[in-house]
Formats: sequence, structure tokens, C-alpha cells
Amino acid sequence: RRKGAAASRKWLVVPSVGEERRVEFGKHQIMKMTGLPGRDLRVLDPVLAYPSTILGRDRAIVVRLQGVKAIITATEVLVPDHDGVALAPFLSDLRSRLSSPPGNVQSLALGAKTPPFEFTVLELCLEHACKDLESQTESLEKEAYPALDKLGSKVSTLNLDHVRNLKSRMVDLSGRVQKVRDELEHLLDDDMDMSEMYLTRKLSFQGFSGSLSRADSNKYASVDHDDDREEEDHDDETESSVYVKPDIEELEMLLEAYFVQIDGTLNKLYHIREYADDTEDYINIMLDEKQNQLLQMGVMLTTATVVVTAGIVVVSLFGMNIHIELMKEPEDAKEAMMSNIYFWETTLGTVFGCVAIYLLAIFAGKKSKILQ
Amino acid sequence: RRKGAAASRKWLVVPSVGEERRVEFGKHQIMKMTGLPGRDLRVLDPVLAYPSTILGRDRAIVVRLQGVKAIITATEVLVPDHDGVALAPFLSDLRSRLSSPPGNVQSLALGAKTPPFEFTVLELCLEHACKDLESQTESLEKEAYPALDKLGSKVSTLNLDHVRNLKSRMVDLSGRVQKVRDELEHLLDDDMDMSEMYLTRKLSFQGFSGSLSRADSNKYASVDHDDDREEEDHDDETESSVYVKPDIEELEMLLEAYFVQIDGTLNKLYHIREYADDTEDYINIMLDEKQNQLLQMGVMLTTATVVVTAGIVVVSLFGMNIHIELMKEPEDAKEAMMSNIYFWETTLGTVFGCVAIYLLAIFAGKKSKILQ
Amino acid sequence: RRKGAAASRKWLVVPSVGEERRVEFGKHQIMKMTGLPGRDLRVLDPVLAYPSTILGRDRAIVVRLQGVKAIITATEVLVPDHDGVALAPFLSDLRSRLSSPPGNVQSLALGAKTPPFEFTVLELCLEHACKDLESQTESLEKEAYPALDKLGSKVSTLNLDHVRNLKSRMVDLSGRVQKVRDELEHLLDDDMDMSEMYLTRKLSFQGFSGSLSRADSNKYASVDHDDDREEEDHDDETESSVYVKPDIEELEMLLEAYFVQIDGTLNKLYHIREYADDTEDYINIMLDEKQNQLLQMGVMLTTATVVVTAGIVVVSLFGMNIHIELMKEPEDAKEAMMSNIYFWETTLGTVFGCVAIYLLAIFAGKKSKILQ
Amino acid sequence: RRKGAAASRKWLVVPSVGEERRVEFGKHQIMKMTGLPGRDLRVLDPVLAYPSTILGRDRAIVVRLQGVKAIITATEVLVPDHDGVALAPFLSDLRSRLSSPPGNVQSLALGAKTPPFEFTVLELCLEHACKDLESQTESLEKEAYPALDKLGSKVSTLNLDHVRNLKSRMVDLSGRVQKVRDELEHLLDDDMDMSEMYLTRKLSFQGFSGSLSRADSNKYASVDHDDDREEEDHDDETESSVYVKPDIEELEMLLEAYFVQIDGTLNKLYHIREYADDTEDYINIMLDEKQNQLLQMGVMLTTATVVVTAGIVVVSLFGMNIHIELMKEPEDAKEAMMSNIYFWETTLGTVFGCVAIYLLAIFAGKKSKILQ
Amino acid sequence: RRKGAAASRKWLVVPSVGEERRVEFGKHQIMKMTGLPGRDLRVLDPVLAYPSTILGRDRAIVVRLQGVKAIITATEVLVPDHDGVALAPFLSDLRSRLSSPPGNVQSLALGAKTPPFEFTVLELCLEHACKDLESQTESLEKEAYPALDKLGSKVSTLNLDHVRNLKSRMVDLSGRVQKVRDELEHLLDDDMDMSEMYLTRKLSFQGFSGSLSRADSNKYASVDHDDDREEEDHDDETESSVYVKPDIEELEMLLEAYFVQIDGTLNKLYHIREYADDTEDYINIMLDEKQNQLLQMGVMLTTATVVVTAGIVVVSLFGMNIHIELMKEPEDAKEAMMSNIYFWETTLGTVFGCVAIYLLAIFAGKKSKILQ
Repeated sequence: RRKGAAASRKWLVVPSVGEERRVEFGKHQIMKMTGLPGRDLRVLDPVLAYPSTILGRDRAIVVRLQGVKAIITATEVLVPDHDGVALAPFLSDLRSRLSSPPGNVQSLALGAKTPPFEFTVLELCLEHACKDLESQTESLEKEAYPALDKLGSKVSTLNLDHVRNLKSRMVDLSGRVQKVRDELEHLLDDDMDMSEMYLTRKLSFQGFSGSLSRADSNKYASVDHDDDREEEDHDDETESSVYVKPDIEELEMLLEAYFVQIDGTLNKLYHIREYADDTEDYINIMLDEKQNQLLQMGVMLTTATVVVTAGIVVVSLFGMNIHIELMKEPEDAKEAMMSNIYFWETTLGTVFGCVAIYLLAIFAGKKSKILQ
Repeated sequence: RRKGAAASRKWLVVPSVGEERRVEFGKHQIMKMTGLPGRDLRVLDPVLAYPSTILGRDRAIVVRLQGVKAIITATEVLVPDHDGVALAPFLSDLRSRLSSPPGNVQSLALGAKTPPFEFTVLELCLEHACKDLESQTESLEKEAYPALDKLGSKVSTLNLDHVRNLKSRMVDLSGRVQKVRDELEHLLDDDMDMSEMYLTRKLSFQGFSGSLSRADSNKYASVDHDDDREEEDHDDETESSVYVKPDIEELEMLLEAYFVQIDGTLNKLYHIREYADDTEDYINIMLDEKQNQLLQMGVMLTTATVVVTAGIVVVSLFGMNIHIELMKEPEDAKEAMMSNIYFWETTLGTVFGCVAIYLLAIFAGKKSKILQ
Repeated sequence: RRKGAAASRKWLVVPSVGEERRVEFGKHQIMKMTGLPGRDLRVLDPVLAYPSTILGRDRAIVVRLQGVKAIITATEVLVPDHDGVALAPFLSDLRSRLSSPPGNVQSLALGAKTPPFEFTVLELCLEHACKDLESQTESLEKEAYPALDKLGSKVSTLNLDHVRNLKSRMVDLSGRVQKVRDELEHLLDDDMDMSEMYLTRKLSFQGFSGSLSRADSNKYASVDHDDDREEEDHDDETESSVYVKPDIEELEMLLEAYFVQIDGTLNKLYHIREYADDTEDYINIMLDEKQNQLLQMGVMLTTATVVVTAGIVVVSLFGMNIHIELMKEPEDAKEAMMSNIYFWETTLGTVFGCVAIYLLAIFAGKKSKILQ
Repeated sequence: RRKGAAASRKWLVVPSVGEERRVEFGKHQIMKMTGLPGRDLRVLDPVLAYPSTILGRDRAIVVRLQGVKAIITATEVLVPDHDGVALAPFLSDLRSRLSSPPGNVQSLALGAKTPPFEFTVLELCLEHACKDLESQTESLEKEAYPALDKLGSKVSTLNLDHVRNLKSRMVDLSGRVQKVRDELEHLLDDDMDMSEMYLTRKLSFQGFSGSLSRADSNKYASVDHDDDREEEDHDDETESSVYVKPDIEELEMLLEAYFVQIDGTLNKLYHIREYADDTEDYINIMLDEKQNQLLQMGVMLTTATVVVTAGIVVVSLFGMNIHIELMKEPEDAKEAMMSNIYFWETTLGTVFGCVAIYLLAIFAGKKSKILQ
Repeated sequence: RRKGAAASRKWLVVPSVGEERRVEFGKHQIMKMTGLPGRDLRVLDPVLAYPSTILGRDRAIVVRLQGVKAIITATEVLVPDHDGVALAPFLSDLRSRLSSPPGNVQSLALGAKTPPFEFTVLELCLEHACKDLESQTESLEKEAYPALDKLGSKVSTLNLDHVRNLKSRMVDLSGRVQKVRDELEHLLDDDMDMSEMYLTRKLSFQGFSGSLSRADSNKYASVDHDDDREEEDHDDETESSVYVKPDIEELEMLLEAYFVQIDGTLNKLYHIREYADDTEDYINIMLDEKQNQLLQMGVMLTTATVVVTAGIVVVSLFGMNIHIELMKEPEDAKEAMMSNIYFWETTLGTVFGCVAIYLLAIFAGKKSKILQ
């Protein structure tokens, strides 16, 4: 609104109850609304190529999972850059999920316990990211295996370029899947971080005690409550224990389910990679083997060259102008016939000699295991 | 049953006591029966290619180990898609194990302590999965080693394709074995998750206190009970400590045993892989060495070509029509004889010259270490 | 100042409030001022090539991040070797950040909580190091991808040397980025180390109790305070809990944000590496394939040599001086014509024979899959 | 004994005090004697190829380290398949160690504290396994380095096969050493597991309290005892703390020492592997370099062929029957002499021409860096 | 001293205060003096090639870091095999460090807190080991980079052997540096192990309480003291907390500083390795590229051979003795001139034909991208 607040972006604000709004907020307004420091907002920056991240902060969860960017608070979701076509299915899902009555089917089955608003949205983000990565992986799978098989049967620049492009895509996709997986694993490993993400509960705690000083106490509940109990009223102790802990359970189950899914996706990518590596090894051995066959062929042909060349020597000897008996001009029919016979003797002798020497050479080569 | 409940599947329900039933359940019925959220049921989906998973939930354990899929509750097992022939041995084992009296031999040896129903079934699932993977590994071993040795002695497209298929199978199998191993390791590392899987105990706790609020307290027993003791009656404290903990022990021992087994299987696969890699290195060096032998052969033959060609030059010189003394037509018998001698001198000179030059060249080559 | 204090260096002392000074300190003066042991000062040694390090000590934080070296205490920053041009932007940023009023925009948005002096400086160091590494990575990216593509299309010594230099730079840069990342991860994993870095808070605690014996108690606050509470006044307990913990949170958030950024940088480098490896694999296959094409060409040419050489044999046969009918000098026009015809018959027979044999040989080669 | 108890094996029972016995036990008898579940006995199965394992159970330690298999209880060792010659040194050591008076030299030095029976045996097992692996590693070392050096100097099928066998052995041995190392590391990481292995102590605790309910309490001593103290007599508290903990120390020290040893063995194997990899790289570069030398030789020879063949053309030109001045039959002595001179001019011109062209070609090749 | 005590070695005993002694101790005397079990002494065995190890035991620290071997107790250092020239600088440093007054410069800067004797010695050992490894790494660096560059520019057996030796040294050195680094990391990760190494403190505790039963309590101070406090006098509680903990801090800082240094050394080695790997890749591509150039050369030369050989055929055709018009002996000057012209026509036709065909072939080769 103010001129001074540079880089104000359009945000779609979807509250848990009520109408969604499209507002343009400056960076500082967002910081005030969500209690996030400026550096956390950078995660959502459309220019910077941040990897997938889930940050649980004091009053908000910052989510960047693949294309889905959002700031989730206890009461509303802020989605930046909501005009892109890539976000359309996410937004329509978000709307339909939020508009459905709290007692929807799944919740009923779970004993009518409605998950808090922030987890409904977080699950949706995870679902979309996982589905997106899964579908990309599947389309890569569909393309990669035939391309690799094709390369295996015929090495050509075209096939190589295709495979190279696919590998590049695979590396990129693996990186992104791995990143989401690591993020989930990291959250699952740290109970504190998960507890931090119960925004609704933290809010209600604050409302209860009516004092800001209790704002963070809940977060350490799992450590503190033993001592808390002794100080506070002992009666609410079991209740608190029951209330606080199942929810970590709830988030853990949610994250675990998507962790399993993304792990399966990563597994598929790993298989493509292994297949590609094996194909490369295979091609290398094939090319080497081919090369040796060609060299063998070359050796056999060069042997032939030597032998035939030797034949030329023999024949050329008789072409020398040193006159010997054999070259005397026949003087009568008998001599002519004899001369004819000599000619054929020489010719056939040379030819058969060459062939014999060649066969002998090849036989020797095979015997010495150089030729196969 | 209802029209609206799409995707209802056939389930085989095997209770711990009583007759097994074949029922068709919708997804929501299963969710209500087992208290599982919808996303956990996806793990059992026959279409999705989920990896091996063991999920300990509030009232059920979801198992997907290789072909074996099941939902285990404290009182019954639900097996989907039970018609497949692959599951037949598992089901027959399951029936016989459950029908045997609780005081079977193994339990007796352990001091007559019967393992709870859920662990009996879980062990059966693990046993089947491990046996399946082990037998696949063994059949792979039986095929892989000879195939690699064959490839090592003769590189051919056929052998290469065979090995490539085997490697592909090996990667796939390794992935699945690794997944089961990781799953077991993960469970063994997390006492909470293991404690979570004592369904029967949790159920009996609930029955005791008769209040839902205690439903989860047992799960944190290992942390809480020190403080619990102070609040509760101090007399039951040692008893509780004895009751709660040995059972984590029991599950730990069960999982550990199968972990050792699956680790051994993984080890075998690792050995095949190492052997395959070594064979490939070996083949590469062999092919390179072969190539050099062929090139040496080529060099020797080309040397021969050069020398023999030089012989042609010599011989052809005498075939030139530039008339020199030597080429004079012999005019008497003595000249004819001389001419004859000249002929043989030239011929033998050329031949022996060529042979001498060739031997010299080869000797020089060997001296300079280019030829061996 | 003193002659005896060897190796005194120039330091720029920037206090949180007041004028900056340029002083020359000996090693022992620094040790006295900051309470650092001598070995920690070695980290800042301009001669030694220490990797990036952040050490939280009793009264100071020692920072060496890329080019930025500093000792941060609760009240001032000591920057050694401040004359270098590389540090100029860092120093100007430092001055402007410190001169801005405490209630700057970001702090206001966070609810007017000013971060302590040491974290303002630490963040600045991190920001500069991350920005520096990021920009180096980007310039490497801009150079590496085209260079690799160029190498892929033409292998030459020049291109190879270029790529080799780039890889060397990449390895070096990766090492440095990895090191910063590891340092941040290590800090994030250890709550104690982070707590240790709250210099201002530790100082104020000391001031409060006025006794040196409490100097370290705060550092173990997160563990001790439960018991502390029982001993001390119970009233300040919740307050202390609120005061102490959000700050670990504050540092954690600060480090986490830069961890995400540096992780993204590392990811980019990893992609370059993967791309380089793929390019190398590609080049290897291409060169092998090229080699086989050349060998094929060689085989075809050698085949031609053999065939043509055989043609020479045939032709030379007729050049032999063994006189046969065919070579009789034509005595009349008819014989001359016949002789002419014989000549062409021989010539064309030889030529076509050679061509036919050659085509046959090539056809046989293609049939046997040795030639393509 | 009973017909029904299939697969009874012979066991050597060596008690801590008294005579050793050779008894044939069925599986169930062993299970009853040692309190082990059936699945733990499978670890000792002679047919199954289980890797090295140390399992600390309730009343027994199951050891399978290399060839040494044993079940150790607090009072006796059960060794299966004791007839093999491989176990002979282990058994004789076992006997001598057990027969030596408790106050042997080492114990005395340690302040006369005798290690419990189970650790004496466990140490013996570890000692034998480590010594066995160490000696195998050393014999491999002695064979591998010369074999690799030999392969480096001459690549032959024989040498390659030898190295391949050695590598196969090395992989196998590494796997086994790694397994023992992992097993020890795993135990050292888990205080619970180590505490579990104090069979004698656990037995004496049971004896003390005379109640089965205390059977496991000792195992959790390190966690529980703080609270135990408050309930029990406060006086024995420090004593208990002193009693319980040094023993974990004792086992830790024992395992640590063998861990260091086995780690050193693994290190040696790792060095062999590195050396083998380097040798392979070296051989590959050598073979490639050799190949290029051969190809260079080939290029030079083919150049010679071309040049010499061109010489043939020249010479053959003069062999054509197209009569030119030069070929006129000399009619007098002067012409004969001229003809002679022509002959030598042609001959030498051709020869020197060829040589000149060849040298020029080689010079051009060296200039263009294709030849070296 | 006694005949029975085999393998007595010479030890240099350097006490913290007083004169050093050279004594010959048997193994059992050392065990009695230091309370070490026999297996820990094996670590110092000069024959066995143990890797670097730091073992914190009850009354002594066993150090084997590179060449430096020592047993450190609270009051003296025992150095075996002190005659070697390698240990001379270590020993002289040790003497000068110990002889300097306790209030030396560094300690003064730290607020006059003198580090306990065992840490002074331990730091000296670490310093020497790190300096030794660092200097070895630097000398390797100085040799390796030029050797690799030399190999990159010319592949020869000599250069290859040099690089191979350097790589072997690098692997060995890396292993040793890694081992020291792992040892330090391991210690830093385990507070217990570090606490164990406060020999002086443990000794003074024992002296205080005057009872052996407290010997180990200090080691668990960091866990126990919360509860201890409640039982013991509450007044000494804060004092104890202040006393015990800064010292873990002290050792942690000491180890951390050397960890950073050794990590930097490892980093340098890693860079050499990466550079070597890149050089090898580079050489492989270079050799392959060279090979293709040679093969191209070969193809061009073989093409030339074919063409020139074809030229021979043409020329030889005219050498056939089949008499055609062209070969008629010229009967007058005009015919002789014509014959001369025919000769040159044939000659030049053949030559230019060959050249034309050759150029055409090369052009076709370049067009089809087989030749470059």
C-alpha cells in the first residue's frame, strides 16, 4: 500500500472459515501478520531457487514443497503468486477440503477427531508435492527404460543425447525428491520441531493462560510437564498428558505416511539410475567386444594382404626380364603347350600357395588364442 | 455394502480364536474397525507399489512385507486379496499356528509365556517375507555365479544380456531386502514405536482403567512411570516395572532375530554385486589386453606387408623394360645357365632380404618394448 | 606495542556503541581481552589455511567463514587484517547495520525484540559468506555448463584443460561450501553449543549474581533450571523459562535460515558435478563408438586392399614372361583385334571380379553383424 | 533322547568348575536349559550361513564369531559340533583358561578382581575370532601385494585370475571382519545390551531377592536406581551405584580393546583394496598407453606401405609395354651403358624418393603431434 | 628385573614434578602401576601395527598417536621405546613444557587456571601428531601436484609409477589422519569418555572422601548430581556443579581445536585425491582421443594404400604381355613420339586418377563425419 514498501506481492488469503481474499501485501505486513523474520520469507521468494523446505515457526508454518508455496497460520493460509496455472489444482483442492464440513468421512472413522486447520493444509501441500513428484517420476520411468534399451541395442549420437537428457532430468528430480524426503525425515526425528507446528494448540494455550509468558511453555511440554505437574494442580496432570501427546502422534503419523510414499518414489528413481549405470557398463563392454572383433577382422585381412602380396612377388618374379628357360618363346606347338602348362602351374601354384599359407596363418592364430 | 462406498475389497478375517470369515469391506468400514486413517490403508493398496512397511498404530499394526499384506489388531488379522496363490502358504501357516494350543513347544521352553496374538502373526509375516527373500536370493546366487564365470571366459551378446538381466534382478531384490532391513532397524532403534505395537497390552490397560483418557499413557510408560509411581499406589510400582518392560524385550528379540537373518541375506546379495563388479573389471582388462595383442599382431603383419611390398619393388625393378646386361636374351647354353643363376640369385636375394629385414624389424620392436 | 610481544597484528575494533578503533594488539592482549586460549586464535591465522569454523567460547565467538574473520564478544567485534579489499563490503555493511537504530524495521515486525549484538554480527558474517559462496557458485555454473557442452561436442586438449580447471575449482568450492554447511549443521544439532553463544545473556547473568561462580550455570540452564527452580525463588521460574528458551530458538532460526541457503548452494554444485560426470560418461561412450566406426572403416579399406592386391596378382600373371597363346604377338589385323579384345576381357574381368568380391565381402561382413 | 526330538546335536558342555561333558541335546532341551527362544538357536545352525553375531539374552549369551559357536551361561559354556579340527585350539585354550586359578596374573595386576565366568569365555571367543581374522588378513596381504605388482608388470590371464581370486577372498574376508566390527560397535553403543550380558550378576541378584519379579530390574539399574534409592534403604545406595556401574565399564573395556584390534584388521584390508584399485587404474592407463604406441607403430608402418606401394607404381610404369625411348634395346656398348645408367637412376630415384617421402610424412606427423 | 617377567621394555618416566627416570619395567609392573588391563598395553606394542588410539581408563590415559606412544597418569608420563630419534623432539618439548612454571603466559591469559598435568601432556601428544601429519601432508602436496601435472602432459611408465607411489602414500596417510580425526570425534561425542579422562580430578575426589567407593561416582556426576544434591548437603551443590562442568569444557575445547586442525589436514588430502582422480579421468579421455586420431590417420593411410594399389593394377595392366596396338614397337619417329605421349598419358592419368579418388574418398569421409 505504502510507496516505501518495495516488492509487495499478491497473496491469496484462505481462512479456515469464511471467504478467501486476494490482497497485496508488502513484506513487512506479512512479517507482522505471521510473526516470521524476514529471512524466512526469502524461502518463498519466486526468484531464489530454494529447495523444498518446511519451517515450523512461532505462529506460522512456512511451506515450500515443489511448486506449492504457502504460509500456514492457525487460522488462515497465505498463498503467494496464486495466479500461476500450476497452483490451480492445489487451490481448488484446498477450497473443497476447507469447505467440507468438519465431520467428514475420514474424521468420523477416526472417532470424529478433526485434525487442526494447519495440518489439513499441510497434508494437502504434502499430498500435492508427492503426487507431483510421483507423476514426474512415472513419466520419466516410461521414457527412460525404452530409451536405455534402445541405446543398448544401438549406440548413436541421437540415442546418447536422449539418454543424457533423461539422466539430467533424473538427477534433478532425484535431488528434489531426496530433499522432500530429508525434510520429512528431519521433522520426524525431532519431536520438538513437530510439537512446534501445533499452531492451533499453542494459540489456545495462550488464550487460556491469557499471558504471553506461557507462549512457549507448551513446546517443551514433553520435557517440562513432569515438573509442571508438581507445581500446578495435580488433577489436570493426566488430562494434560493425554491432550498434549496424541497430537505429536497425529502429526507423526501424517508425516510418516508421506515419508513412506516419497521414499517409494525415491526408490523408483534409484532403480532407473541403477538401470542406466548397468546399461552403460553393458554398452562399454559391448563396444570393447565389438572393437576386438573388428581388430580380429583387421588382423585376418592384413594377413590376407601379406599373403596376397607375397603372391605378387612370386608372380612378378616371372615378370622379370631375366630370361630363363621357362620364358623362352615357344617355337613349336609342343613347346607352346608346355609353356601353357607352365603358365597354369605357376598360376595355380601361386594361388593355392597363397590360400594354403593364409589358412595356415589363420589356423596358427586360432591355435594361439589370438583369433577366435 | 453401500453403493457409495467405492473400492470395497474382499478381506479374510482370521480371529485369534474362532472361525475365519471372508467378508467384503469398504474402506471406511476398515477404518472404523481398526482405527486407521485412510492414508495408512493406501499402504496395502494392490495397485500402488509401496515398499515393505511395518506401521504400528493405535489399535492395529499395518504390515506390508513383500507379498504379505495384513492388518493385525489385538484380536484378529485382516488379510486383503487372499485369493492369490502367493498367499496360500502364508495363510495355511497362519491357520496352523493359531490353531495350535497356546502352550506349544517353544512357549513352554520359554517358561510357558505365550506371546500375544499380534506378535505371533507379526513373526509369521516376517518369517514368510524373510524366507521368500532368502529363497529368491539363493536362486539368484545359483544363477549369477555361473553366468558371471561364463561371461568372464567368453564375452558374447547372449552372455551379456543374461548377466544384465541378473543384475537388474539383483538390484531389485537388494532394494527390497534393504527396505525390510531398514524397516526392522528403524523399529529396533525406536523404543516408542516398539512399545506402540503391544496392542493386547494396550487393550487390557484400557479395559482396566475403563477410561479412554488412559489409552495412550501406557505408551509413554517407560518415561512416565517414575512419576506415575509417586502418584499412584507405591506397591504396584515394581510390578508395573516388571510387567511393562520385559515385553519390549520380547519384541526386540523377535525383530532382532529376523534382522540378523535379513542382514545375512543382504550380505549375500552384496557379495554377488561385488563379484559382478570384479568380473566386469576383469573383463575390461581382458578385453583391453586382447586388443593390445591384436594390435601387436596387426603391427607385425603390417611390418610384413611393408617388407613384402619392398620385395615387389625389387622384383618389379627387374621387370622394367629398361634393358640392361642382365636382361639380355641368352644366346648360348652358358649364357642361359648364367641367366638362370642370375634369376635364382635375384629371387633368393629378394626373399632372404625380405625375411632378414622382417626379422630385424621384429627384433627392433621387441627391443624397444613395443612388441612383446 | 611492546617489543616482546611478537606477531602483533592490526585489529579493527568495532564496538556495539561508539566509535571504531584501529589498534595493534599482540596475541596475549587478545587472549586477555577475549578470554580465548591461544589455540583458538590460530583459527584466525592468515598463514594457516583453516577451513570455515564457528567456535562458541566462554566470552567470545570466533568466526572464520570464507574470507570473513572476526572475534565477536558481547560488546565489540575484532576484525583482523581489515585492510584487504575483500573485507571492505563486509565492514561497510557492519558499520551501517550497527549505526541503524535498534528499533529497525525487521525488529519492529518481530515485535520490537532486538537481537543481541553478537547475533547481529554473526548473521552479517553468515550473510556475507553465503552470498560470497553463492555468487562463486553461480559464476561457476555460468562457465561450467557451456564448457561441458562444448567438450561434449568436440574433445580437444583445450576444452579438456578448461573443464579440468573448472572441476578443480568446483571441488575446491564444494569443499568450502560443505564445510560451512557442516559447521552450521553441527551447531544446530547441539543445543549446548548454541546456548553457549548467547554472550550478552551470559554477561547479564554474571552481572546479576555478581559472582563468578555462576558464570557457567546459565549454559546448562536448559537442563538445570528444573532443579534450580526448586532451590531458588519459585516466582521467577516461569519468567526464567520464558527468558532463556526463546533465545535458543532465535539463534536456531537464524542458523537454520542460512543452513537452508547454503544447502541450496551445495545442491547446485552437486548438480554441476553430476552433469560433469554424465558428460564424461557420454564422451567415453562417444569416443568408443567413434573408434569402432573408424575400425570398421579400416576393416572395409583393408578388405579393399586385399581385393585390389588380388587384382594385381591376376594382372601380373599376364605380365609373366611365360609365353602362352594369349601373348603371342598379333600377326594380322584380326589377331590384333582379338588381342585387343583379350586385353579388355582381362582388364574388365579383373576389375569387375575385384568389385564383385569386395561387395560380397562387405555383404558377408554386414550379414555377420561385424560391420553395420 | 526321545525319538520325537529331531535334529539333536552333540554339545560339549564346559562348566566353570568341574569336568566337561559331551552330551547330545535336542533343540528343546537346549531351549529349556538356556532360556533361549528357538529362533536364537538358528544362529548356531551349521547349515545356515549366519554372519558373526553376539546376542545377549536373559540367561545366556549366544556367540557366533567366525568358526567359534557357543552358548555362554553364567555357569557353563555349550559348544556345538566340537569335533571339528578348527575348534581344537579354541577348546584347548578354553580348558587351560578355566583350569587356571582365579587369581591369575592379569587379574592380580588389576587388583585381584576376577572377571565373571561369561566374560572370560566371551573374551576367549573374541580373541580367537580376531586372531583368526588377523592371520587370514596377513596371509592375504602376503599374497596380494606381490600378485598385484606382478599383474602391474605383466597382464596375463593367469595373473588376472590370481588377482581376481584374491579380490574375491578379500571381499569375503572384509565382509566378515566388518560384520564382527559392526557387532562390537553396536554393543558398545548400547549400554542396555552390555548390561544385559552380566549373567552372573543378574543371577546373583535373583538369588538375593529370591523373587522372580526382580529378575530384570538390574538391567534397568542405570535408569531406575535413582528412584530405587528413594524407596529402598538409602544407605546401600552409594554402594549399589559403585557395584553396578564399574562392570559395564569392564565389559566396555573388553569390547573396546577387541574393537580397536578388529578395526586395525579392517584397515589393512581397506589398504589392500585401495592398492588393488590403484593397480587396476594403473593397468588401464598402461594398456591404453600401450595401445596408442601400437597404433602409432601401425600408422608409421602403413605410411611405409603407402610409400613403398607408390614406389611399385613408379617401377611398374617402366614395366609397361608401351615402348618409349628408354626401353629401346641397346644396340651398342654405349647405349647399353646408358641403359644401365638409366636403370640405376630409376632404381635409386625410386628408392630415395620413397625414403624421402616417408621421412617427410613422419616428420609431418610428429609436427602435428599425432606421432610422438 | 625378574627373569620370569618376559618382554620387559625400557620406559622413560617423566613425573609432573621432579627428575625423569629411565627404568625397565615388565608388563605386569606397568599393569600394577597404571591399573591398565593387559590388553590395553598391547596398543603400545611396537610390533603390532595398531592405528592411532586414545583410551581413557580408570587411572591412566593410553595414547598412541602416530609415532607418539605414552601412558599418562595423573602424576607422570610413561614413554616406551624412548631411544628412537623420532621421539626426540617430542621428549624435549615435553621437558620444556613441564619445566616451565605453572603460571606460564597462556595460562595467565586464561585467568591463571593451570590445566591439569594429564591435559598438558595430552595436548603435547596431539600437537606433535597433528604437526607430523600436517607436515607429511604438505610434503605430499608439494610432490603430488607437479607429478600429476607431469603425468597429464606425458604418460610414461616412469610417471605412472611415481604417481602410483604417491597415491599409495596418500591412501596410507589419509587412513592415519582419518583415524586420528575419528578418534577425536568419537571422544568429543561422548561426554562420559571425556569426563573419564580427568585423572587429577578423580584422584583428588578419591583423596577427599578417603574411600574407594567414591572412585567412580565423579564420572557419572553429570547425570547423578541432580539427585545427589537432594541427598547430600545442599550447600556444596552449586559449588560442585561449577567445579565439575567447566573441566569437560576445557577438554572439549582442547580436543575441538585439534579436531579442526586435523580436519583441515584431511581436507587437503581429499583435495589431492580429487585432483588425482580428475587427472586420471583426463588422461583416459586424452588417450582415447589420441587413439581416435591415430585410427583416423590409419584410415586415411589405408585409403591411400587402396588407391595406390589400384594405381598398380592400372599400370600393371599395361605390363601384361597381351599385345595391343598401344604396345606395338614404334617403327618410326612419329610412332615413337606417339608412344611417348601414350606413356605419359597413362602415367599421369594413373597418378591424377589416384589423387582424385583419394581426395574424393577423404572428402566423403569428412562429409560422413567419420573423419574430422
